[in-house]
Amino acid sequence: MGTKIRLGIVGYGNLGRGVEAAIAQNPDAELVGIFTRRGPGTVRPLSANVAVHALDGVDAFADRIDVLVLCGGSKSDLPEQGPALAGRFNTVDSFDTHARIPQYFDAVDAAARAAGKLSIIAVGWDPGLFSLARLYGESVLTHGATYTFWGRGLSQGHSDAIRRVPGVRAGVQYTVPVSEAIERVRGGENPSLSTREKHTRECWVVLDEGADARAVERAIRTMPDYFADYDTTVHFIDEPTLRREHSAMPHGGFVIRTGTTGERSSQTVEFSLKLDSNPEFTASVLVAYARAAARLSRRGETGARTVFDIAPALLSPKSAAALRAELL
Amino acid sequence: MGTKIRLGIVGYGNLGRGVEAAIAQNPDAELVGIFTRRGPGTVRPLSANVAVHALDGVDAFADRIDVLVLCGGSKSDLPEQGPALAGRFNTVDSFDTHARIPQYFDAVDAAARAAGKLSIIAVGWDPGLFSLARLYGESVLTHGATYTFWGRGLSQGHSDAIRRVPGVRAGVQYTVPVSEAIERVRGGENPSLSTREKHTRECWVVLDEGADARAVERAIRTMPDYFADYDTTVHFIDEPTLRREHSAMPHGGFVIRTGTTGERSSQTVEFSLKLDSNPEFTASVLVAYARAAARLSRRGETGARTVFDIAPALLSPKSAAALRAELL
Repeated sequence: MGTKIRLGIVGYGNLGRGVEAAIAQNPDAELVGIFTRRGPGTVRPLSANVAVHALDGVDAFADRIDVLVLCGGSKSDLPEQGPALAGRFNTVDSFDTHARIPQYFDAVDAAARAAGKLSIIAVGWDPGLFSLARLYGESVLTHGATYTFWGRGLSQGHSDAIRRVPGVRAGVQYTVPVSEAIERVRGGENPSLSTREKHTRECWVVLDEGADARAVERAIRTMPDYFADYDTTVHFIDEPTLRREHSAMPHGGFVIRTGTTGERSSQTVEFSLKLDSNPEFTASVLVAYARAAARLSRRGETGARTVFDIAPALLSPKSAAALRAELL
Repeated sequence: MGTKIRLGIVGYGNLGRGVEAAIAQNPDAELVGIFTRRGPGTVRPLSANVAVHALDGVDAFADRIDVLVLCGGSKSDLPEQGPALAGRFNTVDSFDTHARIPQYFDAVDAAARAAGKLSIIAVGWDPGLFSLARLYGESVLTHGATYTFWGRGLSQGHSDAIRRVPGVRAGVQYTVPVSEAIERVRGGENPSLSTREKHTRECWVVLDEGADARAVERAIRTMPDYFADYDTTVHFIDEPTLRREHSAMPHGGFVIRTGTTGERSSQTVEFSLKLDSNPEFTASVLVAYARAAARLSRRGETGARTVFDIAPALLSPKSAAALRAELL
C-alpha cells in the first residue's frame, strides 16, 4: 500500500477510545487527531501524543485525513453528523438502529455522492459481522432458518432504562441467551421461539437511600418493550460492588443458520462472538472497514456502502497474492 | 435480475449431483445440462429432465450457458479443465489443494483474462467459507492467533489411503477434532498445539478374507503423512455394517480467532459448520458463487477471483436495498 491510512476520530466516548487503541494495533494506519464538539481539554486520549480538536474546525483537515471514523451514538449524533460529514470526508460509522438503516443509508449516500466521497455505514458486529453471517448463511443454505442470539452481554439501552426508574441510583442490565433454545436451534429442530424463550434479562441495581426495593423490582420487570416480554431477574447490590464487578462491557452472541440440502441433509452454519469489550471490538471492526473505505475512495468509488458491499480482501493489509497463499 | 442464471455442470460425481440439487433450490438459476467426459448414458441425473452431454461438445453451448460449475477433482481434473474451460466460459470450481492454489489461480487468471471471461476458484468451505472466517478474523483482531479444526468428518483422502493398504477390502476414515484443544483455544489460552493434539483419526475397516488384522492395523497407524503423526484408532467391521453406518459424508469444523484489544480485553470470533453432507454443502456454496460470477461477468469484469474478492451481496438473489432492510 505504501503510504499509511490517515484517520480521524469524531467523538471520544468508549467507542472513540476503542478506535484510538485499534489504530495503534494497525501499523498501516495512523491517527491524525480526535475531533469532539467541545474541543481540546475536554477529553483525555489514551496516548498523550494525540491532538484533540474542535469538531467545527474539522474541514481544515480535509487534505490530511483519508477517513473519519464516526464514534457518536445512533440516536442523536449520527443522524446529523453522518450525512453532514459524508459530504466532506470519507467516513465509516457504526450506526446501529436497525429499523432506520434504509433512510440513514439514503441520506449518507446522497451526501457522499454529491461530494465524491465514500462512506461505509452500520459497521461493527450487529449490524456488521452478524449481518454478514446472516447473508452468507441464507445465500448458501437457501432452504432454512436464521436465528440470532445476543449475549451474555451488557446492553447499554436496557441499562439506561433501568436507571430511569425512580429509586434507582445506578444499575446495569445483561442480556442472556437461553442455552436450551440455542441447543434446539443447533439440533436442526427449526423451532418457533418467542421473545421470552430466546433471551432472559438480568439486572444489577443500586437503590437510592430509602427506596422501596419491591416497587423498583416491579417497575423494572413490568416495563413495556424493555422487560415485560422477558423473564427478568433483579439483584440489589451496593455501589462499590457495582463498580468492581459490573464496569466491564462484555458482549457477544450467536448467528445460527440451519438448512436442508438434497433429499434431507441437515446443515448448520454458526458464527459466534465472545467479547470482553464490546466497544473495543466494534472499534476494531471500524478500523478494518476504514482501510476498505480508503482503498475504494482511491479507486474513485463514491456513495454509501455497507458491509455487504465490501469484498473481504479490502479489509486486510495483506496483498491479494499473500491472502491466497496464506489464508485461502 | 430479470433473466435466470443459466448453469452447466462439468463432472457428475457426488459434487455434481450436489450442484444439481442446489440449483433446484435456487429459483433464479437453471440447469442447462450436465457435461461428462464419457457423455450421455454414462450418468443418471437426479431429475429425468436434465440433459447429459459429452464434455468435448461443450463449446456448442457457449451462448446458452452463463457459468460452468466445475465438479471435477483437484488432483487431476481441475488442473487441466480449470484453465481450459476458463478460456471459453465463466466458471466456478472447488479447487482445494491449498499448496497449489497460487499456481492454479495464475493459470486460470491468464486463460480467463485472455478470453474476457470470469472465474471464481477454490469455492466451498475449506477453502471457501473457512478462508473467509480466517480473513475476517485476522483483519479485525490484528493481535491474536487463528486455529482451524476439521471434523468430525469423513476424509476422502485418508479413506483412499486406508483402502490402498494390503488386506483392506473397504474402509472409511473420520477426522475428529480434540475437544480439549478446542476448549483451550476458546478460553483464549492461545496454546501451541501439535498435530497430534489437534485431531485424532478414526478408521472403520473391512478386511479381505484371511487378512491379518494386526498387520493391517499396524500398517495404517504407522503410515507416514496420513496417520503416523496422529492418535489413530482402527475398528474392524463387516461390509454390511460399513454400508449401513458409514456411507454418509458428514463433515464440518471450526475456525477460531482469539485476540487482544486495548489493554488486555480478550476477544473471540468463532465460525463453525456441522454438515450432514459435505458434497451437498460445497455444491450449495458453488451455486451462490456462480450467481456472483454471472453478475461480475455481466459488468464486464474478467480474470480469476477467489472468495476474498467477492462482495457478499453478490451471493444473494435479493436486491441491495432488500438486504439492507432485512439482514443488516
